[in-house]
Amino acid sequence: MSKNIAIAGVTGAVGQEFLEILEERNFPFNKIKMLASSRSAGKKITFKSKEYTVEEMTKDSFADVDIALFSAGGGRSKEFAPAAVAAGAVVVDNSSAFRMDPDVPLVVPEINADAIKDHKGIIANPNCSTIIAIVPVWPLHKANPVKRMIVSTYQAASGAGMAAMLELRQQAQQVLNGEEVTCDALKYQLAFNCYNHDSKTGPNGYNEEEMKMVHETRKIFNCPEIAISATCVRIPTLRAHCESINLEFESPITPEQVAELLITAPGVSIIDKREENRHPMPIDATGKDDVFVGRIRQDESIPDNRGINLWVAGDQIKKGAALNAVQIAEKLL
Amino acid sequence: MSKNIAIAGVTGAVGQEFLEILEERNFPFNKIKMLASSRSAGKKITFKSKEYTVEEMTKDSFADVDIALFSAGGGRSKEFAPAAVAAGAVVVDNSSAFRMDPDVPLVVPEINADAIKDHKGIIANPNCSTIIAIVPVWPLHKANPVKRMIVSTYQAASGAGMAAMLELRQQAQQVLNGEEVTCDALKYQLAFNCYNHDSKTGPNGYNEEEMKMVHETRKIFNCPEIAISATCVRIPTLRAHCESINLEFESPITPEQVAELLITAPGVSIIDKREENRHPMPIDATGKDDVFVGRIRQDESIPDNRGINLWVAGDQIKKGAALNAVQIAEKLL
Repeated sequence: MSKNIAIAGVTGAVGQEFLEILEERNFPFNKIKMLASSRSAGKKITFKSKEYTVEEMTKDSFADVDIALFSAGGGRSKEFAPAAVAAGAVVVDNSSAFRMDPDVPLVVPEINADAIKDHKGIIANPNCSTIIAIVPVWPLHKANPVKRMIVSTYQAASGAGMAAMLELRQQAQQVLNGEEVTCDALKYQLAFNCYNHDSKTGPNGYNEEEMKMVHETRKIFNCPEIAISATCVRIPTLRAHCESINLEFESPITPEQVAELLITAPGVSIIDKREENRHPMPIDATGKDDVFVGRIRQDESIPDNRGINLWVAGDQIKKGAALNAVQIAEKLL
Repeated sequence: MSKNIAIAGVTGAVGQEFLEILEERNFPFNKIKMLASSRSAGKKITFKSKEYTVEEMTKDSFADVDIALFSAGGGRSKEFAPAAVAAGAVVVDNSSAFRMDPDVPLVVPEINADAIKDHKGIIANPNCSTIIAIVPVWPLHKANPVKRMIVSTYQAASGAGMAAMLELRQQAQQVLNGEEVTCDALKYQLAFNCYNHDSKTGPNGYNEEEMKMVHETRKIFNCPEIAISATCVRIPTLRAHCESINLEFESPITPEQVAELLITAPGVSIIDKREENRHPMPIDATGKDDVFVGRIRQDESIPDNRGINLWVAGDQIKKGAALNAVQIAEKLL
């Protein structure tokens, strides 16, 4: 039953979280290989009280590996994942490299775990903003099809990597000190500021992050007709994304029905205390497995009670990335 | 032509901005009275190189005053504005106290300056989130009626007052130092966090800030049928609000048509550089008069090209409050 595991990109924010989650969930394994770029090779990593040396990832790294968890960027996934598959490993890839490949299942275990069995060696982990939006939307969609979804995101620095998280803190200190702000990992000043996601903008004016939400949701829901419009924004938070979600359903639905569906939904927790104005915040979701949902209310701008507004918060590194990948790996056992 | 002016709430964030803007715009006046609560009475304020002493606002403060700019909170407006009117002053009130009163014009000069002439002594200044959203939406609505508007806000600390701005900086330093976070002016930790607006939530689940956007827009546009749904969120920025705005129009409209309408619209500047991912940010709008608009794109989730997404940023203290009020006062001259 125990497998040999490899972590590709182990020194990154998601790579480090892979280790935390494997330990936390007591993921059964035989051997584990710590892989990264040549820059990080030789670094020491302690995992479950044992010291490991980071090895440079090469095409020969995957002999004897059963499951490879990749989070080393799309370019490196494209270069090394096929070698891992050729060596007999199953790759769970956190990058966008293979997500829209029709031969690659794109999986959120709470939604379409069934798709895993069709894999041909690679299983893709969706984009963080997509996962955090759709874990709570799926149980609603199953009960009453969502016709249209409008999302505005409030995304944390972690989505741009560990260096971005550190730089946000550095920038905040610079602003507080009245110093000039440094932008290396982040495109613009993020401290005490926000900006639209800096992924490449297409001819339709949507950036890649926004189009990922559209295309990935359609693929995971197996519902190409769902209408989605996203606005993706980076705000000065560290590692949990929030999203303001507006849903139009096929049939009438009440906030009470939504709450009832979400109370029993896997991976979802509700924080929705109207009297105290207590709803999900990034610091609630930080380090937590679940996506938190609140502000469940009828959208009065849609007729016939077919509209619902939601507010969600989820840890970008956990459910948005590493946890979802490990949950996929668990299904492979 | 020169008038006697009073500033009610002169020591607050908006009160201080009133003075800056009166000086900046060389607002003609004869005498100026600095009014605040008893707590601030006796403080010295330098304005246009002259020192003034803050006086406690009483019902007798307004003899001889022609125009009173109020930003002292709704309770104090209700208490003192009628006294100012009885003494012969015209009150421009920044609070929510009179906004929905059918006898009180609610004015954004770029939109409905005409309504000013119907005043009976009080003219209301709209909510900051409302103003910043509708300055750019109005010229579009005039050309092609907006049927439905969905807004998610990214609101700065300044909306909660000067103490909140200072506390956000203090909280950020506390987080960076690993210290416990203090929440006095702000309801929750705002540094490296965000939370839904903490105004009172009604039975429909919407908070007061959100319902202000609905009701005030309808009144200012004189369009009770426009469908609006808002989600108001406080993010850790200092003094400029951003908003993600999704518009459904009666007839088809293209991003090019929207840009053309906005280029000549009063109070609007466009920052929309897709290649560089350069769009309005809070730090762009800070201290500026205009509302900045970017990310003008077709909403592909609405059929027949009747949908447009926008991203806007506006200084909450200037156009969101003090500047708009001074612009109203200028129309009174």
